[in-house]
Amino acid sequence: MADFPSNDCLIILSGGMDSVTLLHEYASRIALAVTFDYRSTQNARERRCAVSNCRRLGIPHLVVDAAFIHDHFDSALLRSADDIPEGSYNEGNMSSTVVPFRNGVMLSIACGIADSRGLRHVMIANHGGDHFVYPDCRPEFIAAMSEAMSAGTDGNVDILAPYTLLSKAEIARRGAKFGVDFADTYSCYKGGENHCGKCATCIERRQALADAGIEDPTVYEG
Amino acid sequence: MADFPSNDCLIILSGGMDSVTLLHEYASRIALAVTFDYRSTQNARERRCAVSNCRRLGIPHLVVDAAFIHDHFDSALLRSADDIPEGSYNEGNMSSTVVPFRNGVMLSIACGIADSRGLRHVMIANHGGDHFVYPDCRPEFIAAMSEAMSAGTDGNVDILAPYTLLSKAEIARRGAKFGVDFADTYSCYKGGENHCGKCATCIERRQALADAGIEDPTVYEG
Repeated sequence: MADFPSNDCLIILSGGMDSVTLLHEYASRIALAVTFDYRSTQNARERRCAVSNCRRLGIPHLVVDAAFIHDHFDSALLRSADDIPEGSYNEGNMSSTVVPFRNGVMLSIACGIADSRGLRHVMIANHGGDHFVYPDCRPEFIAAMSEAMSAGTDGNVDILAPYTLLSKAEIARRGAKFGVDFADTYSCYKGGENHCGKCATCIERRQALADAGIEDPTVYEG
Repeated sequence: MADFPSNDCLIILSGGMDSVTLLHEYASRIALAVTFDYRSTQNARERRCAVSNCRRLGIPHLVVDAAFIHDHFDSALLRSADDIPEGSYNEGNMSSTVVPFRNGVMLSIACGIADSRGLRHVMIANHGGDHFVYPDCRPEFIAAMSEAMSAGTDGNVDILAPYTLLSKAEIARRGAKFGVDFADTYSCYKGGENHCGKCATCIERRQALADAGIEDPTVYEG
């Protein structure tokens, strides 16, 4: 665990297994969790997991209304479940699920909220499995954005992204170690009550838990 | 004028004299102007100028609802006119008017909108007079943020901030040259129908027009 002062972190928390694991691993240092509602296909379902994990850990939780993303950005994730491609990230059809510069937008807003409250670090759970489809999950982006946040706040705020180089299987292992209930995390791009099991993020989730040797408590459709 | 392809720019337009001048100078290259409504003391009044300048120049204009800034960020500009300090930027009391990382937030959202529409550059009218109070107006911030935007969009989008090193008087001179009607720009932090003449931005506006030798059409109170 990185060496930084306690309780001065804000975490961007979707309710997926990556950010929920990060929430558990660094719980003692997190003063505020922020979930963005940008009206994606997943938002309503995954937010329930964000709320319940914060409640369990006693961490204050804020939902930021980011409807402007839905209104003005272009992505299959902002339309409907029928627009979500099926198949794994390897199949080259996943670019439609990019929400342009989503992490940049969430990090910027989180930076302003952190600086308003005297918090020094914004945590985000981007990881190695995201890199080739999502440019705003790559180490180069995180480094540049952290520098921009520091420069734009007179050195007050930067990014902590400790999973940037980890695989999702490694995150699953850490989640198990830090007590994550994976049944109380949500990944599916389609946003149904249960996971579809067919979209890229369902396939990646199932594989990561299997690779980590963790029994998968997820209810998949069909 | 920088050498970049025509009509692939998005401009962040407040309706103040700096961004309205930038709008006029680069009008032929601007495909979309975006105004953020973050419920500041100034927003409603300055937006009228943004709308009318876009209408005059035939440039499409979008208002993005950024109420989350009002709801979750801390700044005197987000409270009421009574909270705005009077006196010039030199008097050391202006830090209360900082909206933390405001330019970072606006640039990030503008980046996502630009990338969604195939636009390549986000223009912003930060200038030299802003630097010592507002860290997110400085050249180091703009350079780092442009690099983050480029990295986070696979090289699709960057920042053009051609006024970064200019004084406000120089912007006034350019405005006059490119046909800006300064009566149709709005600066005052207090947000009244007329400019108060006493807040830092009113004082700076009046001085810039005087230094540039331009007759000031602004109606100041009292």
